[in-house]
Amino acid sequence: MSKQLPVLTGAEDTGCCTPLAQEPIPATDAVNAAGAFKALGDPTRLQLLSRIASHAGGEVCVCELTPGFEVSGPTISHHLKVLRQAGLIDCERRGTWVYYWIVPSTLARLAGLLQVGSVTPVG
Amino acid sequence: MSKQLPVLTGAEDTGCCTPLAQEPIPATDAVNAAGAFKALGDPTRLQLLSRIASHAGGEVCVCELTPGFEVSGPTISHHLKVLRQAGLIDCERRGTWVYYWIVPSTLARLAGLLQVGSVTPVG
Repeated sequence: MSKQLPVLTGAEDTGCCTPLAQEPIPATDAVNAAGAFKALGDPTRLQLLSRIASHAGGEVCVCELTPGFEVSGPTISHHLKVLRQAGLIDCERRGTWVYYWIVPSTLARLAGLLQVGSVTPVG
Repeated sequence: MSKQLPVLTGAEDTGCCTPLAQEPIPATDAVNAAGAFKALGDPTRLQLLSRIASHAGGEVCVCELTPGFEVSGPTISHHLKVLRQAGLIDCERRGTWVYYWIVPSTLARLAGLLQVGSVTPVG
């Protein structure tokens, strides 16, 4: 089995986190968030995530995801698994195919961590 | 020399990117953004970035960054270099010490990519 990435945990479905720029991130939160950012740290995974997130209807069949990528089907499957283990996407098998959708709360939490606009400058 | 991470490029100082959920991210943008996300994909680097970003006055001496971490000085220096090469922080030497600050536009661009709230649901 491949290495399990930590699933991002934090505020329940509020889609917010204390921004990195507001106060030093606690070590445990840093481990969780770093796992999710690491999952985003690959161009193919970012493209897969974007295809899933931007797909009309909010979900996409794996059969529509593989065309257009220069990597093999098993490699795509591996990348999808990494995204899923990081809590960025979820999926369900229906008959022959697996359908994927994003987990908006995870993306929102990561975006919240990177927020810099609302921080009041000091001095 | 260590491997050079790609510096995030994109919209000029507008702090915005087309969100991943709005339309499929182009391959070149995915490579750039993945490099920055990869730099964020380490707990120590996230904590360093957060300490720099949340520091009163907007910048911090490297001498204030090393205490409190269980990793060595050279390891901290390596992590700071990775963050700098990813365009997340910048620095300047003044006399004995190097001072670090965040690059807000890079953080804002990454946050913009992960934005899901403003996307109109289809169907």
